[in-house]
Amino acid sequence: MNVDDIRAAAERLKPYNGKVFLRTPTIYSKPTSDYLESRVGRSVAVYFKCEHIQPVGSFKIRGALNFALSLSDEVRQRGIITHSSGNHGIAVAAVGEMLNIPVVVITPKDTTSGKVKRIRTYGADIVFCEPGLESREITTKQVSNERHMTIVPPFDHVWTMAGQGTIGLEILEDVPDADVVVAAVGGCGMISGITVAIKALNPSIKVYGAEPVAVNDTWASLRVGRRVGPTNPRQTTICDALRISPPGVACWEIVSRHVDGVLLVSDDQTVEAMKFLAVNMKQVTEPSGACATGLLFTTEFSDMLRADHSISKIVVIICGGNIELEHFVETIVV
Amino acid sequence: MNVDDIRAAAERLKPYNGKVFLRTPTIYSKPTSDYLESRVGRSVAVYFKCEHIQPVGSFKIRGALNFALSLSDEVRQRGIITHSSGNHGIAVAAVGEMLNIPVVVITPKDTTSGKVKRIRTYGADIVFCEPGLESREITTKQVSNERHMTIVPPFDHVWTMAGQGTIGLEILEDVPDADVVVAAVGGCGMISGITVAIKALNPSIKVYGAEPVAVNDTWASLRVGRRVGPTNPRQTTICDALRISPPGVACWEIVSRHVDGVLLVSDDQTVEAMKFLAVNMKQVTEPSGACATGLLFTTEFSDMLRADHSISKIVVIICGGNIELEHFVETIVV
Repeated sequence: MNVDDIRAAAERLKPYNGKVFLRTPTIYSKPTSDYLESRVGRSVAVYFKCEHIQPVGSFKIRGALNFALSLSDEVRQRGIITHSSGNHGIAVAAVGEMLNIPVVVITPKDTTSGKVKRIRTYGADIVFCEPGLESREITTKQVSNERHMTIVPPFDHVWTMAGQGTIGLEILEDVPDADVVVAAVGGCGMISGITVAIKALNPSIKVYGAEPVAVNDTWASLRVGRRVGPTNPRQTTICDALRISPPGVACWEIVSRHVDGVLLVSDDQTVEAMKFLAVNMKQVTEPSGACATGLLFTTEFSDMLRADHSISKIVVIICGGNIELEHFVETIVV
Repeated sequence: MNVDDIRAAAERLKPYNGKVFLRTPTIYSKPTSDYLESRVGRSVAVYFKCEHIQPVGSFKIRGALNFALSLSDEVRQRGIITHSSGNHGIAVAAVGEMLNIPVVVITPKDTTSGKVKRIRTYGADIVFCEPGLESREITTKQVSNERHMTIVPPFDHVWTMAGQGTIGLEILEDVPDADVVVAAVGGCGMISGITVAIKALNPSIKVYGAEPVAVNDTWASLRVGRRVGPTNPRQTTICDALRISPPGVACWEIVSRHVDGVLLVSDDQTVEAMKFLAVNMKQVTEPSGACATGLLFTTEFSDMLRADHSISKIVVIICGGNIELEHFVETIVV
């Protein structure tokens, strides 16, 4: 993948701006900048790229839409299929409705009714399967073969990554003199696309990943130099969209070579970030969406800013806001 | 007041963008547009002007900052004073800190400790007084005389109105082909400034006020053609910042002649709007800030859209988000 793939993705997405996709704003945050200044003792400007206000509630629309639009007409008309019941599933369902093509979302039986309802809203067919990744993948392949539908990969595909990479192009439009961009990492599709875009256009901008400490597979992979699982596979995180492990194969090629580092965020720091964003920026976020903001609350990131005075502008991606209001409230009100 | 006053205000505010003031974004909302389409049976685009993400949490910063910057150096250095313990008080305190001048905020004894704390954060002096408007005004005049400080009027002054009017200029930059702009009305300072800006630059754009049905003084004033109080003075509203009555004298000159109408919003509709904005737009708003959005949930507004097919783009101002998280949660989670 190179920046031309991402530019092509941006052209494909453009006609859908204001429809299923939104060219989101990047907003300067004085309260967050002030907070960071209080931690590191010098002025640092913080901006938020607001992907949580996408109509589907997360950045996933970019990859899903670019993937579907990259298919040939004939293949696309037969429909698309995926097995995520989370943000990617919602995005694929919305793309299907927008393009008026059949969509199937393979959904484990134990998925919450709220998510199932959300996917149904977009008119997608739901096929239930047993819980567990194996059953999901087998069912997806089976239905895909039966109905001749194309599987939309959630992260590990050039079209998906290139779609997410359009976030990087927009950040460069909005804050061309950014020094650091922070993105959450799950399967690493988003950070891969963003990194390729940013490093191609301005290699001096650093890109850091934020990963939940409990599911630290990308961090651990960078340490040993190959794709491995998290240090402790029995641990989990409230960042449900970032539980994916290990990083995708294609993503790893990019992350291992071009990302400047992955730093760890505890769930407490993510909750602190959700609360901070609600109180000071009036934003509702899901845990996975606030994980990158959680990095601002870590000692490691503050130490980095204290050591490297060349960093004065930081763009943090808020990548998702799909959370039931009751769950949001339970999470942030202690 | 004319559009040149507002243009001058915009120039005064400009150097403070990213400091105490934020040039806020206007964001297209597909979920809100879809909702309105479901009500009126045709496509209408809804945009939100996001004043609730001002660093001080409301649009009030514009008027307060323009007022303070319009004073002579000598007068300004002696300091500024106000008696609002709400959004205007917070804005005046923040302006004082920014410009490094003394600030006094006269605060009724029964003000919640959260608000007092917030005002103190900005380094303002707090002088307590008895509750009630009379005591507040008397104390303000007294302290103002003693300390030679200038009173910053919350709405009924050309400098305040011109500051708020900069919202109108920005809306025209962001959505030049808007058909309707909706703003909440309390004392009418904001809608006055916005109306002057918009009508000067594009008289075909309609400006509507949204007012809580329980404190309908502006609506009632327009009916009888002079400034009167609400129909039922014993009623109140959850929109605490919009309880002011009657409209300001200078504001009334503009509202009575140039605003296209004031429509009424029930508190239930405002709560519905707060919930809708949280779920679909991931925004935390205070009741007064969501009142204008509440208009989208009224029969009267839908009827207007059904009758007038020339309206296809609506900009709604979210004017404030200063609410304790606990209060926000209590209000929207039933």
